[in-house]
Amino acid sequence: MSNDASLPGAEHLQPHECWAALRGVSLGRLAVWADDHPDIFPVNFTVDHGTLVFRTGPGTKLAAALGEVPVAMEADGVNPDTGVAWSVVVKGKAGAIERIEDVLDTVALLLFPWEAGEKDHFIRITADSITGRRFTVAPPRTWWTPLDDAPRASAE
Amino acid sequence: MSNDASLPGAEHLQPHECWAALRGVSLGRLAVWADDHPDIFPVNFTVDHGTLVFRTGPGTKLAAALGEVPVAMEADGVNPDTGVAWSVVVKGKAGAIERIEDVLDTVALLLFPWEAGEKDHFIRITADSITGRRFTVAPPRTWWTPLDDAPRASAE
Repeated sequence: MSNDASLPGAEHLQPHECWAALRGVSLGRLAVWADDHPDIFPVNFTVDHGTLVFRTGPGTKLAAALGEVPVAMEADGVNPDTGVAWSVVVKGKAGAIERIEDVLDTVALLLFPWEAGEKDHFIRITADSITGRRFTVAPPRTWWTPLDDAPRASAE
Repeated sequence: MSNDASLPGAEHLQPHECWAALRGVSLGRLAVWADDHPDIFPVNFTVDHGTLVFRTGPGTKLAAALGEVPVAMEADGVNPDTGVAWSVVVKGKAGAIERIEDVLDTVALLLFPWEAGEKDHFIRITADSITGRRFTVAPPRTWWTPLDDAPRASAE
């Protein structure tokens, strides 16, 4: 196992496996550097030809944090039966989508519902690298608490 | 709404609400700065008197990334019925727990199962700040795909 897998017992994912995993989810966590600290935002994203696209509001801290500094987007998931989890990280630069035709192309990708509130900035992350790993958690229902608490909460 | 809420429509959480939310979950995403990029790792953590504690393996990229540079841990969740989601970010310094009595105190907190593999470093994040927000996603089953896909996957 190379160091990139980061954790004992982890298995590397090939880039095409990473992209396939990302295409199967819509929620990621975006890490940026802002105010001398890392910061993290949960965002909905979509995969668009080797890039990630998401929307954000004007004037937000997230928008302010996007510049020439690299960012990282992570997404993950788990199979609650097998306990096999995956995590993929895309690193790259994030830039606003400025040209109207680019925005129009992208809007079609973003028709899925979104966090409430005004969001009229479209941001694209161009991947400099994509890495992923597959690992086992045990038991998954404990490890991945939020996933399993949410359905239970709905029954209350 | 102050800028800290970051997104239109978001509502601030008070610090005690943030801590309460963190105590209810065990999975977070840790953002660090490594190799001139942000990086993100999903980790299990536990709350210990205003700090967050987690384990990691020796010699991993995660361990290497922990030093004097600040880190951020984010956790989130959603009520799939109401679509009300929350996200909390703790920022601070991460340090190894070195003193054996500190480790023993902490081990008791870490009896919940963990990702498979050897992990004998205990890391504590001391919070310099804790911020949180509550916001509405619609519909939550689309927004929070991984949560809802996982239970379905189990039926296959």
